[in-house]
Amino acid sequence: MTNFADSFFSTPQMAAVFSDDATLRQMCRFEIALARAEGEAGAIPAAAAKIIAAALEAYEIPQGAAREKLFTDAAKAGTLAIPLVKLLTAAVRARDTEAASFVHFGATSQDVIDTALMLQIAEALGLIATDLDRLGNAAAALARAHRDTLMLGRTLLQPATPITFGLKAAQWLVAAGGSRARLARLKPQTLVPQFGGAAGTLAALGDKGVDVAHHLARHLPSLYAPHLVLPWHTRRGALAALAAEIGILNGICGKIARDISLMMQLEVGEAFEPAEAGRGGSSAMPHKRNPVRAMQAIAAAERVPALVGQIIAGMVQEHERALGAWQAEWTAVPEIFKLAAGALANMAATLEGLDVVPERMRQNLDRLRGLPATESFAIALAPHLGRIEAHELVEAAAKAVASGEKSLADVLTNNRRVTQHLDRDAIARIADPRNALGSASAFIDAALAFWGERRD
Amino acid sequence: MTNFADSFFSTPQMAAVFSDDATLRQMCRFEIALARAEGEAGAIPAAAAKIIAAALEAYEIPQGAAREKLFTDAAKAGTLAIPLVKLLTAAVRARDTEAASFVHFGATSQDVIDTALMLQIAEALGLIATDLDRLGNAAAALARAHRDTLMLGRTLLQPATPITFGLKAAQWLVAAGGSRARLARLKPQTLVPQFGGAAGTLAALGDKGVDVAHHLARHLPSLYAPHLVLPWHTRRGALAALAAEIGILNGICGKIARDISLMMQLEVGEAFEPAEAGRGGSSAMPHKRNPVRAMQAIAAAERVPALVGQIIAGMVQEHERALGAWQAEWTAVPEIFKLAAGALANMAATLEGLDVVPERMRQNLDRLRGLPATESFAIALAPHLGRIEAHELVEAAAKAVASGEKSLADVLTNNRRVTQHLDRDAIARIADPRNALGSASAFIDAALAFWGERRD
Amino acid sequence: MTNFADSFFSTPQMAAVFSDDATLRQMCRFEIALARAEGEAGAIPAAAAKIIAAALEAYEIPQGAAREKLFTDAAKAGTLAIPLVKLLTAAVRARDTEAASFVHFGATSQDVIDTALMLQIAEALGLIATDLDRLGNAAAALARAHRDTLMLGRTLLQPATPITFGLKAAQWLVAAGGSRARLARLKPQTLVPQFGGAAGTLAALGDKGVDVAHHLARHLPSLYAPHLVLPWHTRRGALAALAAEIGILNGICGKIARDISLMMQLEVGEAFEPAEAGRGGSSAMPHKRNPVRAMQAIAAAERVPALVGQIIAGMVQEHERALGAWQAEWTAVPEIFKLAAGALANMAATLEGLDVVPERMRQNLDRLRGLPATESFAIALAPHLGRIEAHELVEAAAKAVASGEKSLADVLTNNRRVTQHLDRDAIARIADPRNALGSASAFIDAALAFWGERRD
Amino acid sequence: MTNFADSFFSTPQMAAVFSDDATLRQMCRFEIALARAEGEAGAIPAAAAKIIAAALEAYEIPQGAAREKLFTDAAKAGTLAIPLVKLLTAAVRARDTEAASFVHFGATSQDVIDTALMLQIAEALGLIATDLDRLGNAAAALARAHRDTLMLGRTLLQPATPITFGLKAAQWLVAAGGSRARLARLKPQTLVPQFGGAAGTLAALGDKGVDVAHHLARHLPSLYAPHLVLPWHTRRGALAALAAEIGILNGICGKIARDISLMMQLEVGEAFEPAEAGRGGSSAMPHKRNPVRAMQAIAAAERVPALVGQIIAGMVQEHERALGAWQAEWTAVPEIFKLAAGALANMAATLEGLDVVPERMRQNLDRLRGLPATESFAIALAPHLGRIEAHELVEAAAKAVASGEKSLADVLTNNRRVTQHLDRDAIARIADPRNALGSASAFIDAALAFWGERRD
Repeated sequence: MTNFADSFFSTPQMAAVFSDDATLRQMCRFEIALARAEGEAGAIPAAAAKIIAAALEAYEIPQGAAREKLFTDAAKAGTLAIPLVKLLTAAVRARDTEAASFVHFGATSQDVIDTALMLQIAEALGLIATDLDRLGNAAAALARAHRDTLMLGRTLLQPATPITFGLKAAQWLVAAGGSRARLARLKPQTLVPQFGGAAGTLAALGDKGVDVAHHLARHLPSLYAPHLVLPWHTRRGALAALAAEIGILNGICGKIARDISLMMQLEVGEAFEPAEAGRGGSSAMPHKRNPVRAMQAIAAAERVPALVGQIIAGMVQEHERALGAWQAEWTAVPEIFKLAAGALANMAATLEGLDVVPERMRQNLDRLRGLPATESFAIALAPHLGRIEAHELVEAAAKAVASGEKSLADVLTNNRRVTQHLDRDAIARIADPRNALGSASAFIDAALAFWGERRD
Repeated sequence: MTNFADSFFSTPQMAAVFSDDATLRQMCRFEIALARAEGEAGAIPAAAAKIIAAALEAYEIPQGAAREKLFTDAAKAGTLAIPLVKLLTAAVRARDTEAASFVHFGATSQDVIDTALMLQIAEALGLIATDLDRLGNAAAALARAHRDTLMLGRTLLQPATPITFGLKAAQWLVAAGGSRARLARLKPQTLVPQFGGAAGTLAALGDKGVDVAHHLARHLPSLYAPHLVLPWHTRRGALAALAAEIGILNGICGKIARDISLMMQLEVGEAFEPAEAGRGGSSAMPHKRNPVRAMQAIAAAERVPALVGQIIAGMVQEHERALGAWQAEWTAVPEIFKLAAGALANMAATLEGLDVVPERMRQNLDRLRGLPATESFAIALAPHLGRIEAHELVEAAAKAVASGEKSLADVLTNNRRVTQHLDRDAIARIADPRNALGSASAFIDAALAFWGERRD
Repeated sequence: MTNFADSFFSTPQMAAVFSDDATLRQMCRFEIALARAEGEAGAIPAAAAKIIAAALEAYEIPQGAAREKLFTDAAKAGTLAIPLVKLLTAAVRARDTEAASFVHFGATSQDVIDTALMLQIAEALGLIATDLDRLGNAAAALARAHRDTLMLGRTLLQPATPITFGLKAAQWLVAAGGSRARLARLKPQTLVPQFGGAAGTLAALGDKGVDVAHHLARHLPSLYAPHLVLPWHTRRGALAALAAEIGILNGICGKIARDISLMMQLEVGEAFEPAEAGRGGSSAMPHKRNPVRAMQAIAAAERVPALVGQIIAGMVQEHERALGAWQAEWTAVPEIFKLAAGALANMAATLEGLDVVPERMRQNLDRLRGLPATESFAIALAPHLGRIEAHELVEAAAKAVASGEKSLADVLTNNRRVTQHLDRDAIARIADPRNALGSASAFIDAALAFWGERRD
Repeated sequence: MTNFADSFFSTPQMAAVFSDDATLRQMCRFEIALARAEGEAGAIPAAAAKIIAAALEAYEIPQGAAREKLFTDAAKAGTLAIPLVKLLTAAVRARDTEAASFVHFGATSQDVIDTALMLQIAEALGLIATDLDRLGNAAAALARAHRDTLMLGRTLLQPATPITFGLKAAQWLVAAGGSRARLARLKPQTLVPQFGGAAGTLAALGDKGVDVAHHLARHLPSLYAPHLVLPWHTRRGALAALAAEIGILNGICGKIARDISLMMQLEVGEAFEPAEAGRGGSSAMPHKRNPVRAMQAIAAAERVPALVGQIIAGMVQEHERALGAWQAEWTAVPEIFKLAAGALANMAATLEGLDVVPERMRQNLDRLRGLPATESFAIALAPHLGRIEAHELVEAAAKAVASGEKSLADVLTNNRRVTQHLDRDAIARIADPRNALGSASAFIDAALAFWGERRD
């Protein structure tokens, strides 16, 4: 049964990847792959390897009271691996006493726990990749569709010069593309098995350690073959870098969510999360359409950064296995993935169904009555009046606009020193925000190309 | 079924307090108390209040598929309160249609969710108080028992002057006592119901809001009667202060755990976690006795500070209800309590059964061959040789000790300029670390008095 | 010369309290007080105490190259205390060789560094108290002045039911009051001297340690006389609690800043930071009035929580002096105070001069065309139509409002089943948001009383 | 004058890179490059561009009171760029009024501030690369030199099986190599100019924006030519990823520091920071050699993770320029670099001069009296006794060792069931930890190859 927090803040798929059941299954997968690898490398008898693999593939993860006991034993032992390996050994012993003595042979608790985590992360990154593509594709579609949809640019939560909604979406798109590229580069170094034995020397395997390690990786095909066979028990940099990147992806979703929640304000009304029965509504207040998806993404953005900080802080791990810092990763790393997956799925769904209101965007822009064009007029008048006089003239006009009701174009049209040089059409052209978009369209093209080209 | 993380890092009792079941039950408790309060205040018909209370007291928390649906609906609605209140309303409607329309009357989602959290925290603080008393009492016992047990003081992980193990325990004791006192002072301001209605005005209750609020508090006796009736929807300072204090208590446990884990090192061997079958042992390596309890406390100390930081960061809550920052508390606050409870229980059990090895403490101290007495000899010789000459003489002796095999007392006994003024007995007396403990015993007395006297 | 970061994010007064100059001066103050205390307690010759005090009071903090050398030596020594004490000793030696040997007698580096920090914090809390009073008084004035100023309540950044601006200000006020009360309670336990000697036993002082400690506190009147004389070298709970409370105060300022920055949005326009020449303006864009003070407070709210988390994480301090965790406090604690002081001063100035625009508040509320009154109408019609029918009728009307242009009152006035029971006046009365404020005014009274009464 | 914190925790070089002086100079560099780029692209008159470049190259950064005023104005304006650009404009105006009107043309505050930061980071990464090479080279030398230096492997701060000190150093080496590779990959995407104008469209440059951007990058050769010309005002993922990687490098240094500080403990005594006059010594306690460099690295490891968390949390930036979250980066990003640089320099110097004590390593290993060989004996006896009987026999022997004084080899030599199958030599060979190192040497080779190959 999924718990409330996962239901609320994650996706069912990601919650399943990091469920206790999945953890135990992935730990079994490690022991199966290990037995096969050791059999092939001659580190244990081939027959024992086969029996172990067969027994563990048939093994059923304990439920109910047996699970409770397993977890209680784990808390006492200080690791889930010891009591689980006991159960697995018993399951093999039921078939063959001799083979049972080769379960987990030469490995240490951290080998099985860390490799299981890698297997979970490999699945998790698959889920992330799918939703990141959805997010990017949806942002790309918005960037294309709203290339010319004018809206107010906003800096420091105050009005700035005009932009297009397409450019805003293009920025979200590039953020998604950057995340995709950085994640892709991190995977080969990070998604590798952990295998070092008691103190990181694979002592029990004599001179067969490296060979077993290569076979082991081959039997775990969702992981990368390690280009560098060396355990990483207390060397957590690659994992920390991956956790940070997931945290950054989560931050990207938070930024999108913040933008949309601000645009959804009653007084702004420029874009809305897609409507859906039962989502964010309020029977008592039909005027309310709560940004529930944004809320979940922002909540994740509040939670994940501190968890990433914890992972980095936890890199200070003593000697060959840490006391506390490693164990603290066990809940934090899954939490990062689960929260980020929820944020990502919510933002992908939001962008896919975003309800954009171009009229309100235009209305909000028009509230400024042309003030963002101040600089354009100054430039247009400079050749005629000199730069300084032009600037002063336009600044005075802007103040008149700000304190009155007229538009900048109207004020300037009533100024003879302006109309001597610029006719009504010229004024209208300069005042038109469509003519003040600079490189916005070129930037959208660049963003679409970046996403399409997959220049990872 | 308890999940692995809670089994490993918390206590069963604390995990139960913050389980989904408990959350739902406490939300029901709020609705029952609310109905009663509104009935008494005349805000709803007394008959309806009775029916609601009776129906909800008989209500059984949904399990299985019904629970899954409840949580899925909650994720869509953006709050657990909306679908739960629907279920509760249906339960009342099965008895009386009219009464059903008064369920949750005048309240808002955040009222029930925050009050349920307060009810959980009230229970949690009870559990904390019990184990904090255990911790303090055990530290007090150690301080008393080892008042004269000499050991090396260590600063910057290097040897300093001698202390007693009793003094070290007294410091742990004072830390526990300080935590107890600060927690006690925070409770009355923090453990109050949340009650404000849709936007914090209790609008639906007309002029009866304050009256209902007082009755509500009375029906929730584990909470304090609010001296200040005012909702705190986006005013989270008191909650943040409490979360920080729990984080600090967790840090205190982490400090004790760090000290003990350092003393448990093979080469130090001064104190050990109590031995227990299945705890921290290793069948393969009988020489190993892993500091499993310290490990759990240190892992908690790695995790909790960032969660506290998150709570404080989340205080920046918009207007009358936050979008994201409040929701981010839902998992972080329970996590802080659960981890701290685990750390505290582990350290209480550790101190209660701590295996202290005074001989090793003395051996480790004796490795310094009297060097910590350098200053005492300089003081003793100053009246005879002058302060500067005395200092130089002793410093030279200390260098001889550090680079050779002899003790400081031996070196000085072989120095005629010393023995002119100090005889063998005097030298032995000065060299004896028992005579170099300054106020250690007085400090232990102060610590014991502090713990005993200040039962806030 | 103040650095940019302090200029931008703090106040000159708070930056001065934690300047390097001030740190060095406070360290001198400790050494002076220590000498006097030791003289009085007979731990050092009274004459030496006098000479030390006189020499150090005349001592001038090194500047320029001498300062550079001091800091370079400190980095090598691992503490600022060792090279500074050398300089102080030299300054005393210039007057009296004998007295020089009693400088810093019996104390350790951490004694002088921690006590200097306490002296700085005592000053810092004075500055904080002044600005916190300004903030509270300004919020109280707003609460009083705007008791009846209607505005839209907003939850999840969406419109909720009406509130008054006075109630919003009252919530800020209570937040300030809670902070003031909690800070006041923390002071006596926290602002105490640090005094333990090399390993926390005051060994060098023989049996005079406690006596010297009492005299020392007396000579540092800005600190509290310790009710518990015991060093706290690696017992950092009280300091962490204080750091957390300053972080919470900072969070309160962040919440106010967030609210105001949202109200300052062009499309909302309900309140503005006070205008001031050169503040937040833009010559190019006269339509811009940047919320610069809010920006500084929000930036502080982004920074401080992680610093508080660091302090709590740093409580895991080894044995009698920590390696790294203590030293990490040296910059973090001042940073917390400096940032919070900046946020507080900015928010105090903002509330003192806040430019409130009641007309825009009312306009924004009126955009909802009476929808928040839905529930009030349902209650009013229930006795006539039955609760369920009344609810359905009003809900249908609300939907008509939301999808059309009319107000709820207009829609209901056109409904004969309504007008059979409620006349035009009754409808207008129910529709008037002034009649839907519940306990808002009572809550304001409670907040004002809380601020006035509880001058802890 | 360097402040204390930078002196203590950073390097003079890195402190200089992020000094206020350097910030102002880099901002000037941006304005010079911008003028040149705009002149070349025809966005401003070529003559004006030349005058601006000449004037600003001759411009002297204000000091003293002028600096104070600049910073005070910046705090009011909400940005350092506005008052600085005013000063720069005045400097140009002193040469040519017309040219002055083209200073900062088309750019926004964030363009100059972010680009200046990139220029600083480019320098910073150069310093980092140098010291990271030192660190790696020193670790490589230790790995080579101590390939056969036996020591105790330690897990959970408890003894495990033997390793070599060379393997420990090899792990440090691989950590350094991984950091180097990840940093190298991040640079091209991150170290690019910021250039977007008021709202990210380069509106003022009409259709010349992209062209100017390319020229601009060319005039800032320490930055990369952007493969994607698009401002990143509120798109902070790449910067956050870089900050995280520096945080991870810092964590790597913390791990090394922790290991060394544990080895430096009096009772362990296996390795020591290089001795140096005035570093970590204590005149009063000649037995003390404080791990000052480790202390500084550990303090950095306490500070940086929370700062990285802050940067990631700050990614939630509103619209086209953030209110607060961006400004919060200004001090945090430099702090991360400064602290990491200090930690890195300290650990590089430590490894370069590390004082390794192989005898103590061997002694500490020998304390276990052969217990780590338990498993090897069980394997050796299994063919003769059967696996289970062999295991039981050896386990009983191990218990005898643990509770007595004899070594495992001695106990087994006295057991006839053992000596029937294994002679004295065989027992000695199995007991010899040199024969229980598994793949340690192969792992060292792999690590050295990884560092040498520079497979970035």
